Amino acid sequence: MKLGLAQIDPKVGDIKGNTRKILDYIEKAKASKVDVLLFPEQAIAGYPVLDLLFVSGLVEQNLQALELIKEEASGITVIVGFIDKHESLPGKYYNAAAILEGKRVAKAIHKQLLPTYDVFDESRFFCPGESTGPVAINGIQAGVVICEDLWDEDYETKVVAPLAKQGARLILSINASPYYKGKIELRERVAREKARESGVPIVYVNMVGGQDEITFDGSSFAVNPDGSVAFRAPPFEEGLFEVEVPVGGAIPSQSVAPALPRSEEVFKALALNLRDYFEKVGAFKKIVIGLSGGVDSSFTTVVAARAIGADKVTCLYMPTRFNSDRSYEGAKKLCENLGVELVVFPIEKIFSQFESDLSEAIPGNTFDIADENVQARVRGIILMYYSNKFGYLLVSTGNKSELAVGFCTLYGDTCGGKNVPGDLFKTELYKICKEYINKDEEVIPKHVLERPPSPELRENQKTADSIPPYALLDRIIEPMIEEQGSIDEIIAMGFDENLVRRVARLVKVAEFKRAQLVQTIKVTRKGFGIGRRMPVVNGFDYTETLGLK
Amino acid sequence: MKLGLAQIDPKVGDIKGNTRKILDYIEKAKASKVDVLLFPEQAIAGYPVLDLLFVSGLVEQNLQALELIKEEASGITVIVGFIDKHESLPGKYYNAAAILEGKRVAKAIHKQLLPTYDVFDESRFFCPGESTGPVAINGIQAGVVICEDLWDEDYETKVVAPLAKQGARLILSINASPYYKGKIELRERVAREKARESGVPIVYVNMVGGQDEITFDGSSFAVNPDGSVAFRAPPFEEGLFEVEVPVGGAIPSQSVAPALPRSEEVFKALALNLRDYFEKVGAFKKIVIGLSGGVDSSFTTVVAARAIGADKVTCLYMPTRFNSDRSYEGAKKLCENLGVELVVFPIEKIFSQFESDLSEAIPGNTFDIADENVQARVRGIILMYYSNKFGYLLVSTGNKSELAVGFCTLYGDTCGGKNVPGDLFKTELYKICKEYINKDEEVIPKHVLERPPSPELRENQKTADSIPPYALLDRIIEPMIEEQGSIDEIIAMGFDENLVRRVARLVKVAEFKRAQLVQTIKVTRKGFGIGRRMPVVNGFDYTETLGLK
Repeated sequence: MKLGLAQIDPKVGDIKGNTRKILDYIEKAKASKVDVLLFPEQAIAGYPVLDLLFVSGLVEQNLQALELIKEEASGITVIVGFIDKHESLPGKYYNAAAILEGKRVAKAIHKQLLPTYDVFDESRFFCPGESTGPVAINGIQAGVVICEDLWDEDYETKVVAPLAKQGARLILSINASPYYKGKIELRERVAREKARESGVPIVYVNMVGGQDEITFDGSSFAVNPDGSVAFRAPPFEEGLFEVEVPVGGAIPSQSVAPALPRSEEVFKALALNLRDYFEKVGAFKKIVIGLSGGVDSSFTTVVAARAIGADKVTCLYMPTRFNSDRSYEGAKKLCENLGVELVVFPIEKIFSQFESDLSEAIPGNTFDIADENVQARVRGIILMYYSNKFGYLLVSTGNKSELAVGFCTLYGDTCGGKNVPGDLFKTELYKICKEYINKDEEVIPKHVLERPPSPELRENQKTADSIPPYALLDRIIEPMIEEQGSIDEIIAMGFDENLVRRVARLVKVAEFKRAQLVQTIKVTRKGFGIGRRMPVVNGFDYTETLGLK
Repeated sequence: MKLGLAQIDPKVGDIKGNTRKILDYIEKAKASKVDVLLFPEQAIAGYPVLDLLFVSGLVEQNLQALELIKEEASGITVIVGFIDKHESLPGKYYNAAAILEGKRVAKAIHKQLLPTYDVFDESRFFCPGESTGPVAINGIQAGVVICEDLWDEDYETKVVAPLAKQGARLILSINASPYYKGKIELRERVAREKARESGVPIVYVNMVGGQDEITFDGSSFAVNPDGSVAFRAPPFEEGLFEVEVPVGGAIPSQSVAPALPRSEEVFKALALNLRDYFEKVGAFKKIVIGLSGGVDSSFTTVVAARAIGADKVTCLYMPTRFNSDRSYEGAKKLCENLGVELVVFPIEKIFSQFESDLSEAIPGNTFDIADENVQARVRGIILMYYSNKFGYLLVSTGNKSELAVGFCTLYGDTCGGKNVPGDLFKTELYKICKEYINKDEEVIPKHVLERPPSPELRENQKTADSIPPYALLDRIIEPMIEEQGSIDEIIAMGFDENLVRRVARLVKVAEFKRAQLVQTIKVTRKGFGIGRRMPVVNGFDYTETLGLK
């Protein structure tokens, strides 16, 4: 039989738009003689709807949409993710899949395993479902599972093995599984292992697109019990993909999209997320970026230009007495290379006025970090002015290393509706610039990538004066943030004790900045934002032993 | 027997400090011949530790602390909240209560019901415990329950009734139950109903103190099956309170602290939270507030002065050409009344420099909301300058009505480490000023409360030019935010359809501002912040019917 994988990009809450898209895909699939068409988890309402779930009307609209979609399910079987109401408890819901056949809901499957970690809060929103066994779909006994149901390793409840035992000869898995580095490989590995264990092939359809901090990469696939990948859809692209599946037995090898090099993969995830934010919010005319001539803002400008088109990006270069000519040259050359508009807006006069008024108010005042911050904040005001005046989306450019240790000015360079590189360590960012962006031609001027980084907020400033070198810092922050390691553990890895303690202190003090952080884009297992919930008031001494003396 | 209720204020993560406090209270209780001493839920690690739970060392330190505390439990029974490890699954935990007797852990009780709604995420952190039946404590069979265990109405699992059936003659309930308006009464009502149902008295100890957005009010109590309140501790105060409890039968009437008037209660919750933020972070010399002469900043200044002392509060009045003399007089008089320092810092010159540079950069530029925002943002820069330069905590002053509809300048008046009135509608804020702050003397000058509100960002501006009158707006926002009602439902309450749609649109568009909001203080059932998780990208049409045409 012919399976259709509708790797679609819904918009959270836009039940009207999502339903239209689903109906279009059904029409397309019928024209292609697809027998069974799979949509992602929560295709109707989008994922995750978060507390929109509790807003009156949302669940009802989603059920009305299911009724409409059902009417088109004739001559084709459609499996689509939706929100189901609990049978008896008002205000309680299931994360569900409807199997639509002959213009009726043949069966509703409820997700059994509810992820409640990192960016996931499903126990807040849904009740766990009960196993309902395999379903006859187009003449084959199939187990329909929803996302986490496939990842039953860490749960007492098992989902896939029982389905196989009850006679399922195929597993159909619908998903809204977000991207991070390594997730595409991990996902296939988990599915191959489940196929091996249960002895049945698995067909996996994933959502694609950006939704706030998270990005669905698509990368739908089909795997066999022998571990072979029979089919793989390209990542980061919407589309209807077809897979021939025999009634019983292994799925023959078909189109298998190659894995992207890691640098390209991360870049495309960021670009897709940014594009979707821009288009789904739908209120912006352009993107505006403060371009300093440094690597972070250069990188962000390239992502923006590739995401929505160079003609829709404006960069502002805003020098004071502390900015070097080299910085301007870097900004200018990059914009020329990309075809992006560059506005030069000197802020020296405004900054001087601040300095003079502040000196008057504070006798004996001397220049320090507070004065450095004024410059970053004046830039924030100018950028927000362009945003407010012209309806531009301000995109901020801070990277994960700097956000981790708070080497950023709150209400200054952190201003914006969206941040692009906030889940990338500085060293990774350089790597993507070199390996992907500048692979075939010098898009980002070479000297931007080669000169030592500096915020240029005082005379001859080097970033290395304030924080440890990135090559070292990133190796300390990674286990600290992503593995949540203790100071003792990280020191035991061979780093200098004082340095580790200093970094830990910086990370802790910056918690209040991150609590107000602009929305960023998750590309690692543990990004800053909704997936990491740290108290601001926090008296923990990050060591293993209490030492109460 | 004599019960001790240790209504204490721990600090999240500060296991050392919390343990010292617990040991002090045990010593005090022993000196008072207390037989059984109850500490709140999670007294050792503080509540909620959030993702600190997963940071290496935290759980171990908390278990080491329990060992130390255990050693002091001789001649007294101590019940204390802690984090217990799962028996077999590594990385899984229980929210637990230890019953300490004769220098040993007589029993560990695991919380059975895990709240996962509003500000609570316990399913992210803990496994549900199993019922372990009553425990003999000082010669009486007692059921020990942890917070949500008492609120079993909405759960399939019941906790209290089974304990009574198994012979419990007293329920001891340890809690970290946050404050909101009406919560103190609700809590007692729930406990009285449970006491009635089960036929056993309930002794309830609650945490006190502020932790990030939430505030524990204390208000520990004891209730009887006949519905009587035998004991009530004062709210918002740390202390060791003693209750005589018979071995079987009703608890005789003892000290019952009177309920506070609502205005005073809310004010004290805000002041306690702000004080605790200031002291627990422990890094600030003073609080700095931008005082405009309007009601929000006047209110916030009073809260700050009462919370940490007038001598530790500095206000900045920052006029442009648009600020009236009346505003200055209001600010000046308030600071005199309170004994708070007032710094006048005119920003007209800085603002003019912005205007002139912006006009140069943007030919034909005219004054609009973008220019209004520049003024608010210049004030933000000056306030943050004082914060950075002198180590002051910047406290912001936006109220819930304005945060709801986005009538605030992001990176302007929203700047700060803490916001005070962000969960109070404007109309409530006036009420507290009149009913509580100005009850006995005119602390806030009368004209501040009587003149029509204005942000004074352009000539003769009135807030009523931009948003509906607060008396109307607040009545629409309340069901929209706190009840999560649909547009249809709110219109059906009798409000004008266009107005409701306009307000709903404003609320939706402001979601991105609130996603970066300064930490506020929850005093309602549904505040902005961690208890309300709305997508920023959100295509929902807030009506009941799909209308797909």
